[in-house]
Amino acid sequence: MQETAQNLAGSCSFVKFGGCFTNLYFYTMAKPYVVGIDIGGTHTVFGIVDAEGHIIACDKIMTGDYPDISDYISSLSRAVTGMIENNGLNGQIEGIGIGAPAVNHNTGVIEGAVDLPWASPIPLKELMEKATGLPVSATNDANAAAIGEQIYGAGKGLSDFIILTLGTGIGSGIVSDGHLVYGHRGLAGELGHTIIRPGGRQCNCGRKGCLETYASARGIVRTAIEMIAEFPDMKSVLSEIPPKDLTSSDIGIAAAKGDQLAIRVLQYTGEILGEACANFCAYSSPQAIVLFGGVTNAGDHLINPIREAMAKHILYIYKDQVEITTSKLPHSDAAVLGAAAAAW
Amino acid sequence: MQETAQNLAGSCSFVKFGGCFTNLYFYTMAKPYVVGIDIGGTHTVFGIVDAEGHIIACDKIMTGDYPDISDYISSLSRAVTGMIENNGLNGQIEGIGIGAPAVNHNTGVIEGAVDLPWASPIPLKELMEKATGLPVSATNDANAAAIGEQIYGAGKGLSDFIILTLGTGIGSGIVSDGHLVYGHRGLAGELGHTIIRPGGRQCNCGRKGCLETYASARGIVRTAIEMIAEFPDMKSVLSEIPPKDLTSSDIGIAAAKGDQLAIRVLQYTGEILGEACANFCAYSSPQAIVLFGGVTNAGDHLINPIREAMAKHILYIYKDQVEITTSKLPHSDAAVLGAAAAAW
Repeated sequence: MQETAQNLAGSCSFVKFGGCFTNLYFYTMAKPYVVGIDIGGTHTVFGIVDAEGHIIACDKIMTGDYPDISDYISSLSRAVTGMIENNGLNGQIEGIGIGAPAVNHNTGVIEGAVDLPWASPIPLKELMEKATGLPVSATNDANAAAIGEQIYGAGKGLSDFIILTLGTGIGSGIVSDGHLVYGHRGLAGELGHTIIRPGGRQCNCGRKGCLETYASARGIVRTAIEMIAEFPDMKSVLSEIPPKDLTSSDIGIAAAKGDQLAIRVLQYTGEILGEACANFCAYSSPQAIVLFGGVTNAGDHLINPIREAMAKHILYIYKDQVEITTSKLPHSDAAVLGAAAAAW
Repeated sequence: MQETAQNLAGSCSFVKFGGCFTNLYFYTMAKPYVVGIDIGGTHTVFGIVDAEGHIIACDKIMTGDYPDISDYISSLSRAVTGMIENNGLNGQIEGIGIGAPAVNHNTGVIEGAVDLPWASPIPLKELMEKATGLPVSATNDANAAAIGEQIYGAGKGLSDFIILTLGTGIGSGIVSDGHLVYGHRGLAGELGHTIIRPGGRQCNCGRKGCLETYASARGIVRTAIEMIAEFPDMKSVLSEIPPKDLTSSDIGIAAAKGDQLAIRVLQYTGEILGEACANFCAYSSPQAIVLFGGVTNAGDHLINPIREAMAKHILYIYKDQVEITTSKLPHSDAAVLGAAAAAW
């Protein structure tokens, strides 16, 4: 790593990433590395990334361990600067790129993330610059993932796609004609908060029936608990787990082992998600919708119902035109790489 | 007119339109006029437009009078060439721009418009080029209206807005970061066919619960007929009109005169439309949603409920950020001007 750093240090060259991102050249300046940070409701993952998109080092902290934002920033900045030092890269870091929910891309302020433990607004960029002494660029976490997928993953070669990040909540990044849709205040693409069931489940955002109340990790767990109550005669390993400990991962694993209730939970989730995806096609007519995040580990028991429901509900002019696919990148890499890209 | 034509003929200059459209320069070439055609489910409006966006002449035919597409193309092309001749502009027309529902922007083919009387696909560009001998460019009618509003109307100075064309059906054009969202096959922006009431009213597209079944001119009439049945004791002039003759215009006029049933119809329509607009904001975070078309003549009885419902249902990060406004252009001008812009 030191050697790579030496090779690149002092150089001043254009490095081109990926096939599809034809207009994006990263000017590496004098410093050959950046830090990419992905802030999620559960974990915060961060890594040092070189100009070719290799993750040199990677680590994480638990977001929920820090109810106080000051403690979180201290801990995160210590972990990041420690990682830089341990890898002998002091003075070699161009900047920090952060992906986080509901960040205003223009100001670097988190304006209202319902899945983070802190009250908004949070001047994330300012706090992290102060704590690390490095320049910080912040963007919506799902936008960061979309950039990561576009350069390195399932979005390669696609001019029009949507990424849905299925985690604690649901984020989204919309790429239209090769460009991320930011909206006039940098807050576009909150597709997890489109209302899919008017008057439906209560959402953390204060409204009812948002997609994320059904198809996020939390939403899937909620469906499972509801179905355990509704079908008491269905034998299921899920009914042996205390509801407060039940995770979407448990449900995916149970489905893979043939647990009929778990399969039904994923079927229901997939139907709602597929219906939502059909609606999303009527916005931007994408070539693909890329599903991203731990929830997608449930595999075909989830993905097949999504495909079927989308085919059933899609407007006929888009029929057979939109692929449902999953991230081609190792888990969390897209988000870290995309966040890093924001720093270049 | 002749004089203007003479002044511009033979010139070869860049003409800049509007303040917001900073990157769009129309290269006027040798010929100073274009024809803009707006094909709607009820009327087809067409006009001759000069390089500064003045409509020199304008006329219309009834779309529904021609169940056969060949007859329609013959009649329309005769009317257009007649208008060119009558204005002494033979040889002065650069080309024809057409806005029509569900046109594939890349091919000029109507791929499936449920509100037109002909079976799709219709090779519109090819048919009109053959019939007129002029080059034709075709784009989605709502996209054309969006371009018209962006250059001359309510979209002036806005980088991010959505136009909803409320007519026989509902079309939409999405402008993001100054650019129209076309999608990978030129068919993006069918927001009238997003499902707002799962399992709701049957739509011409074959699915149920599309926005257009509630908030188009047809949808409003349907609501009125349903409410006449539901509230037989409510006195209303609408109940004196045979259902087959009832129009959205009748409902707007009745509401303006204080007809309580008509007001209730518009209230219901506005609530659904406002809820849909709240969802649209989560997609592209626009500065404004511009409502366009005859239905908007109903005025405050419709617009106020839309604003209230959007405020109620919008995700809080967009609260008070999105204006609901109506077209600032004389009726149908935006569509004709936008279609004309496609021809330059």
